[in-house]
Amino acid sequence: MRNAALDTSVYLDRLARVRAAMADQQVDAVMLSVGHDLPYMTGYTAMPLERLTMLVVQRDGDPALLIPGLEAARVVPQPGVFDLLPWSETEDPTDIVGRLVSGAKRIAVGDQMWSRFLVELLPHLPNTQFTRAVDVVGPLRMSKDRAELDALAAAGAAVDKIAGELQRGEIPLIGRTEAEVSSYLGHRIIEEGHQVVNFAIVAAGENAASPHHHPGDRVIQPGEIVLTDFGGTMNGYCSDTTRCVFTGDIPADVAEAYDVLFESQAAGVSAATIGTACEDVDRACRKVIDDAGYGDYFIHRTGHGIGLEAHEDPYIVEGNKRPLEAGHAFSIEPGIYIPGKWGMRLEDIAAATEAGPERFNNSDHRLVSVDA
Amino acid sequence: MRNAALDTSVYLDRLARVRAAMADQQVDAVMLSVGHDLPYMTGYTAMPLERLTMLVVQRDGDPALLIPGLEAARVVPQPGVFDLLPWSETEDPTDIVGRLVSGAKRIAVGDQMWSRFLVELLPHLPNTQFTRAVDVVGPLRMSKDRAELDALAAAGAAVDKIAGELQRGEIPLIGRTEAEVSSYLGHRIIEEGHQVVNFAIVAAGENAASPHHHPGDRVIQPGEIVLTDFGGTMNGYCSDTTRCVFTGDIPADVAEAYDVLFESQAAGVSAATIGTACEDVDRACRKVIDDAGYGDYFIHRTGHGIGLEAHEDPYIVEGNKRPLEAGHAFSIEPGIYIPGKWGMRLEDIAAATEAGPERFNNSDHRLVSVDA
Repeated sequence: MRNAALDTSVYLDRLARVRAAMADQQVDAVMLSVGHDLPYMTGYTAMPLERLTMLVVQRDGDPALLIPGLEAARVVPQPGVFDLLPWSETEDPTDIVGRLVSGAKRIAVGDQMWSRFLVELLPHLPNTQFTRAVDVVGPLRMSKDRAELDALAAAGAAVDKIAGELQRGEIPLIGRTEAEVSSYLGHRIIEEGHQVVNFAIVAAGENAASPHHHPGDRVIQPGEIVLTDFGGTMNGYCSDTTRCVFTGDIPADVAEAYDVLFESQAAGVSAATIGTACEDVDRACRKVIDDAGYGDYFIHRTGHGIGLEAHEDPYIVEGNKRPLEAGHAFSIEPGIYIPGKWGMRLEDIAAATEAGPERFNNSDHRLVSVDA
Repeated sequence: MRNAALDTSVYLDRLARVRAAMADQQVDAVMLSVGHDLPYMTGYTAMPLERLTMLVVQRDGDPALLIPGLEAARVVPQPGVFDLLPWSETEDPTDIVGRLVSGAKRIAVGDQMWSRFLVELLPHLPNTQFTRAVDVVGPLRMSKDRAELDALAAAGAAVDKIAGELQRGEIPLIGRTEAEVSSYLGHRIIEEGHQVVNFAIVAAGENAASPHHHPGDRVIQPGEIVLTDFGGTMNGYCSDTTRCVFTGDIPADVAEAYDVLFESQAAGVSAATIGTACEDVDRACRKVIDDAGYGDYFIHRTGHGIGLEAHEDPYIVEGNKRPLEAGHAFSIEPGIYIPGKWGMRLEDIAAATEAGPERFNNSDHRLVSVDA
């Protein structure tokens, strides 16, 4: 759960840029807890626990990193980035935070902080307006530098190896349950250098029509589509790829739909250039599927940003008019889902760069027939 | 991530009891999202996503389960327990919630709901007081019935098998990294019937002095303590056990401290009878360690409740005067941590029952020497 700590100068630079954004947006304090803004700012990841860990950044002075006493030994100190404030098992950490930020008019809160802590803070801060920290920290995190893009590329290459094994029939499918294959994919994700498995969706036949199907006891049969969508976190950065294989000869209706899906996904990647609005990337994918008559079966947005977090800004969705900038990284993952019959999705991570769209997943993009 | 759905009558009964608690506490609405109150009330587990899933329970009428459209197919309907309210990719779900509960004076919010959604709701509900849903749903969840205790016992027996393998030297330690052993423990947790690995701490030598050490590249050596603390979720209920082994002959200082730890843990289990205050169970453990002169090295509370969630009420900690009731289940896990040298912890899950304390972990409680 711990992000590799970078050089202190990286965190000092990020802190300076957050403070500039706070001044712009008239934010008096930023509170970060569970989630990925905290490791981005400090190198330390909070455990998702009832014991509060929180970075409090004010406009001046060193930020305070409140931490349960028994976690303090896990923190790599970053002089000038934060002061460590351990609290003991019999103290109330929200009291401490309430005193730290008393008088703040506007506080930006990390998205994934447990509501419990905000509920407990509200009575301490009756006149404070709360906003989302994603408006302060998000734009920084969205624009990845080359080292961050390289980390995404490395994570992508690692999961591509596993996709290749699936496509070459080296991972047995027929006769195994979705859950067994999912567990094996998770095992391979770790073997290939990830520290955390984020998900390993395996959905066979009609189950593939549910985009976030939870792998279960369904035994994979000959002659059906198997959708796999898997990824993890490797040295702090996430992978995420979706490939479908077919256990036998591919029927004409499936082959025809997959051709459309393939074209749609390629159109999305091609559209992902600097300056293009996120919704226009979504539209590029959707147009191909709409034109082929499958529009009603593409039931989700085209993609999500990715980085320290598996899902983060920018979202590739209708209504998001944000223009892509250099270093924005995101999934492009159109799908076609026929309820009760089958589903298919094709997903790469890509980034907008000065040299054009860069793809981080390069396993075979076709629907491959396997006999294992 | 999906809890096995129980018979609808179970959820109707829980709903009636929640409504009674809402009336008692003058709570107008309960909002449950990510976390374990939602599956307890509905059988459905929300994915931890930027797309909102939320059960809204008001004093009258069927509760509404707001859900991202593309997840709707995953929900097992429970007639009379909730109405399904799918929202589409271009709607704002907090608007929908704001309209549903407009006029509510007091709303209880699930602990683990992302703060993002509460921050977005606050402007819709300027005159509402927010409290923690744990006060409403928690007491129900705390008092497990026999079927729930049996589920905890089954999960405990599953991880005990793995602890036994460690203690018999069947899981190689020396020469492997903590991370490798941790990954293998996770694999075994799934093999033994769990659906989710919650954690698998492996901490060798001086690393064991950090109670929540994150397993890393440290290679396990001959002649040191290896602390393992692992558990997962099996059919909705959690396991959690800690055992230490020693890779070689046990030095006198370690053996002496472990004898104290063993006595402390046994004292805690014996004290866990109906009517005993949680803090008195903590004190029973602590007294043994204090009396032996290791008091400064027992740096955390004695335990946490467990059930659908790995950590939940009741907490076994100084200051918690709640008397144990039949069906309360919790960990008893004292530890002794000598910074820079070694650490040790011994953990069982236990429950207070009419027949006295019931232990759900029964692998060897001694510090076993292994040569693998």
